[in-house]
Amino acid sequence: MIEFIELISSMDARKKFFDVYSPELKTEIIETRNSLGRVTASTILAPHSLPNFPRSTVDGYSLQASDSYGASESLPVYLKMVGEVSMGAEPDFTVKPNQCAMIHTGGMLPKGTNAVVMVENTQILKQDEIEVMRPVATGENIVEVGEDINFGEELIPAGKQIRESDIGGLMAMGITTLSVNQLPKVGIISTGDEIISPENELSLGQVRDINSYSLSAIVSRYGGIPQVYGIIPDEEETLHEIAQKALSECEMVLITAGSSVSYRDITSLVINKLGKPGVLVHGVNIRPGKPTILSVCKGKPVIGLPGNPVSALVIAKLFVVPIMERLLGITYKNPTATITAELSVNLSSQSGREDWIPVRIVTNKQSKYKAEPVFGKSNLIFTLVKSDGLVRISPEDTGISAGEHVEVILL
Amino acid sequence: MIEFIELISSMDARKKFFDVYSPELKTEIIETRNSLGRVTASTILAPHSLPNFPRSTVDGYSLQASDSYGASESLPVYLKMVGEVSMGAEPDFTVKPNQCAMIHTGGMLPKGTNAVVMVENTQILKQDEIEVMRPVATGENIVEVGEDINFGEELIPAGKQIRESDIGGLMAMGITTLSVNQLPKVGIISTGDEIISPENELSLGQVRDINSYSLSAIVSRYGGIPQVYGIIPDEEETLHEIAQKALSECEMVLITAGSSVSYRDITSLVINKLGKPGVLVHGVNIRPGKPTILSVCKGKPVIGLPGNPVSALVIAKLFVVPIMERLLGITYKNPTATITAELSVNLSSQSGREDWIPVRIVTNKQSKYKAEPVFGKSNLIFTLVKSDGLVRISPEDTGISAGEHVEVILL
Repeated sequence: MIEFIELISSMDARKKFFDVYSPELKTEIIETRNSLGRVTASTILAPHSLPNFPRSTVDGYSLQASDSYGASESLPVYLKMVGEVSMGAEPDFTVKPNQCAMIHTGGMLPKGTNAVVMVENTQILKQDEIEVMRPVATGENIVEVGEDINFGEELIPAGKQIRESDIGGLMAMGITTLSVNQLPKVGIISTGDEIISPENELSLGQVRDINSYSLSAIVSRYGGIPQVYGIIPDEEETLHEIAQKALSECEMVLITAGSSVSYRDITSLVINKLGKPGVLVHGVNIRPGKPTILSVCKGKPVIGLPGNPVSALVIAKLFVVPIMERLLGITYKNPTATITAELSVNLSSQSGREDWIPVRIVTNKQSKYKAEPVFGKSNLIFTLVKSDGLVRISPEDTGISAGEHVEVILL
Repeated sequence: MIEFIELISSMDARKKFFDVYSPELKTEIIETRNSLGRVTASTILAPHSLPNFPRSTVDGYSLQASDSYGASESLPVYLKMVGEVSMGAEPDFTVKPNQCAMIHTGGMLPKGTNAVVMVENTQILKQDEIEVMRPVATGENIVEVGEDINFGEELIPAGKQIRESDIGGLMAMGITTLSVNQLPKVGIISTGDEIISPENELSLGQVRDINSYSLSAIVSRYGGIPQVYGIIPDEEETLHEIAQKALSECEMVLITAGSSVSYRDITSLVINKLGKPGVLVHGVNIRPGKPTILSVCKGKPVIGLPGNPVSALVIAKLFVVPIMERLLGITYKNPTATITAELSVNLSSQSGREDWIPVRIVTNKQSKYKAEPVFGKSNLIFTLVKSDGLVRISPEDTGISAGEHVEVILL
């Protein structure tokens, strides 16, 4: 009877893996407009200050702030209007003391002015004269040169996943192309004599391939390029051949099934033949997903996932996604957004083991979230289909009580 | 002096809009493997039960449960092994009382058996005889026919955005193509005489177009197809012409700038000429984003966004994204995942107004999240670039105190 040599915690498993693994990243130049979700290959510095001229943030009149001091509704200040600032152009006139210029939001302040009074706080007396009914301070209602960002400041750090606002910031600086890390190719191999392709009719004893597709989707969602190598029978030679091909063509290889404690278990044998150092972790104290294999062969990660589709997806979230983030070169990592919900029933767990429980989120009458566990054997794909997320029970705990607040990681 | 006719809450603004707007959805058939993020056009029912045969969930021996009753390490039960179940095939033999068959995880139970004893709880005596050292109950270590899902049950509801596990579930049922709602085209128009294309050098008074790109990215991220119509000068005729073209080619139109309280404000004039009912909301009691315009013309949403890029992005999250969800046909909506963090400083706000404050998330020594507001005028794009998310101050509140826990919506 084969037993796992050791069953370690998920944290220790990740540590053991990342102590050995560190990818070499390749970069490429892409258009900034298409860079959403891509990861910056280097730090980007501001090529100039923004704005590069003093801008009005309101519609109103540009003036010397000191001219407005003491102005009130009962005792307004009278200013002569000497021009209107055209949008998108440098004003071709200068404003002298006791004068002002009409200006619009985003307009450039004319020389001689250092503040803008909002149109709401003025009244037009004649065509070229206004009343100012409120004082403004120096710099009021304007954005100074470099107030958004200064020349040479860091715009975006290296290793950051580009978001909408980052694209906006880059475009504002005229940075229309960007050096990013290449997208990693991830090879996916399903094994099992009982597995058939989804378009085929089932005979008794057969099940359709789920993992090739759900793992492809998770690879795509997190920014990789999935490459499916098909369904391989439980046969060492064939698996070795395909795994070798996948390893040479991809930056990471996922092999599902064949990783259970079984005399049919050939995955770890095959992985150890693929290259050094081979299998680093075989067996993690976690449910679902105990038979997980983490290995590095010739500098590339080869991950053995349980054949059961629920375990495969949960383990992909916990182990494959962090490796993909490394492959993508993400070093500036956002915390994971979650939903805080009240647990609807007691959950028990074995001490020392990390459990991940699928839950459905329901909104109660007080608009508060409740997390309802979706029970079912860990290999039923529809327990996940019916769930909104996963709740973790840490190895230190033996359960969570109904009414406690839990963090739900969305599926 | 032009004033907003009314300044309503963001909730009332959305209500006023959705009371009038309801899109007609078009559907298309796509491959399930490529359906991540797409929205189901109709409810999908199970075409057969899953599994369609009783499966073992462990490696061991398939037997009649009653034969194992009373078994213990000191007093094992002896069973004759009459065969091994081949993976992916219906067993061609029957198991009689006091007999068993070797079975692997995922194998089909042979006739005459109703449970599986784990290999760990057995010992091989001779080639065709084993000792069972633990009793099993009927149904133990097996998945019954239909236990994952039954024929005719709802697999996936209509209006749900497909996730990895859903693709897995559909593939398990042999559903390799899927009817989904078409992706909406969203037209994006930037206006302003001072706006230039990002690849151009800036003259004084000019700023580069940010909104066309950051709004395109937000449309893409939430599942739409952005269509950029370029930068239009502040000129009613031209804007009307382009907006008309965009309205005829797209399912929604976004127009940035031109929506501030200004004599230059031509957006609402143009929108009202595009078709009935026209402008529904002009001015929302929110910061940033007060000059927002929500309108429906000829059954399509036309949204006027503030020209300032920070307001445009925040308002896109708050108003454009919910409209896009309607256009995508999402009716089965997941709650939004957030990060709960401790606010680092006091934030004050005007009562009656909804405020959205950009914050950076930092992790403190106790691995807890802190939310640090990123201050800066609301039109500085780099306040958003430097932020991880947004914190809401509700109209009922006049602020949030340092040390309170806030929900951060990630940018």
